[in-house]
Amino acid sequence: MRTVYGINPVLEALKAASAIDRILLAEGRTGKAALDIIRHARQRNIEVARMPEEEIRRLAGTDRHQGVAALIHEEFKYYDIEDLISFWKESKEQAFFLILDSIQDPQNLGSLIRTANAAGLHGVIIPKDRASEVTPTVVKASAGATEHTRIAREVNLVRAIEKLKEEGVWTVAVEAGCRDTVYTADLDRDLCVVIGSEGKGIRRLVRESCDFCVSIPMRGQVNSLNAAQAGAVAIFEALRQRL
Amino acid sequence: MRTVYGINPVLEALKAASAIDRILLAEGRTGKAALDIIRHARQRNIEVARMPEEEIRRLAGTDRHQGVAALIHEEFKYYDIEDLISFWKESKEQAFFLILDSIQDPQNLGSLIRTANAAGLHGVIIPKDRASEVTPTVVKASAGATEHTRIAREVNLVRAIEKLKEEGVWTVAVEAGCRDTVYTADLDRDLCVVIGSEGKGIRRLVRESCDFCVSIPMRGQVNSLNAAQAGAVAIFEALRQRL
Repeated sequence: MRTVYGINPVLEALKAASAIDRILLAEGRTGKAALDIIRHARQRNIEVARMPEEEIRRLAGTDRHQGVAALIHEEFKYYDIEDLISFWKESKEQAFFLILDSIQDPQNLGSLIRTANAAGLHGVIIPKDRASEVTPTVVKASAGATEHTRIAREVNLVRAIEKLKEEGVWTVAVEAGCRDTVYTADLDRDLCVVIGSEGKGIRRLVRESCDFCVSIPMRGQVNSLNAAQAGAVAIFEALRQRL
Repeated sequence: MRTVYGINPVLEALKAASAIDRILLAEGRTGKAALDIIRHARQRNIEVARMPEEEIRRLAGTDRHQGVAALIHEEFKYYDIEDLISFWKESKEQAFFLILDSIQDPQNLGSLIRTANAAGLHGVIIPKDRASEVTPTVVKASAGATEHTRIAREVNLVRAIEKLKEEGVWTVAVEAGCRDTVYTADLDRDLCVVIGSEGKGIRRLVRESCDFCVSIPMRGQVNSLNAAQAGAVAIFEALRQRL
């Protein structure tokens, strides 16, 4: 059982056919978003229960619930890397994956999953340990993109990279100090972008497994971007090269 | 008087010659970051006072202080749009500005200021009302980039856009549903990028003042990026076109 809260996350869970038990809506909420949620719930025959705002706050464990939550009678469903590879192959598209090495901030993880979904990636791979998993906070930060995105949780990212390589996918580490930039490198090929954590970057063994490394050019006094921004710049530059 | 907290914000405040009264460092902190801060403070003859972690938490008003805070005996210094324009002209570079229309989330505002600084923009313009100002949370989220970035707070963004236009700067609104994309539009000119708020986008009068409008191509189920990611993609695409 898990709880998803916030307008977009609940709407995306409804659209994604997640196994929803009940929608909880704060008493008195009657705006466009509330009506939208009620309409989608009716279409799927899911009960919408009205209750005091305070009750939803307690369930969500935060004030950022926007008066709505969904109770889902399944844990978040992670995929295997093999599922991601099959999904890519069936799509007949150029491969486009994202590996997130030990992102600990749930806001950043959510933003990166939203970005990956928006850019049409075939899947996101995160480590099983020492990293944020897909919590309700991550679902909220992703605006519900988690409900549509194939996410694999792997114990060993190096092995995940090896598997991608065996399938002909190039892995590119995005970090400071590389000779190539996202703009000079050829990203128009079967690709997996690798982004490191906020403080520590990409772990050494993971980086050494990558095929090549690119930087984002810096022109100011601060010499790095937040992981979520760096990921967005690299992913959308790869998308641009494919257009 | 204002307080800046967190390792990067305090370091950037020290480097930016902000008017710092005192550095407060939690007892027992002796790692590389702490030594770095002590070294920079000595160079500037600024006292470093040790105190209990709890005291720094109280001053910062959050747990995210990383054991360090700086007391600065000035309010945050905003510039006028005229200052930003002069700074650009003295630089002899192509103009590169960012207008943020009513960003309310301090994390997003901080991320966007960090991105603007990293891309070497000449300044950031934010509205005076109904938007986040540069609070300690924003300084932290910007990793201290606020201490190096020219930020103007304008009552009337439409008038700010008019002033930029008079100087030959093109203003481009980034939003969904435009015919042009960031990739098809010519961003290699004197430019001001305009980003709207998370929920409401760019306000109508502000958008109508812009010279043109571009979208970011979307390929997934979620059909928008977070404001901070959209800003990063647009700003770095403009930077790419200038390289």
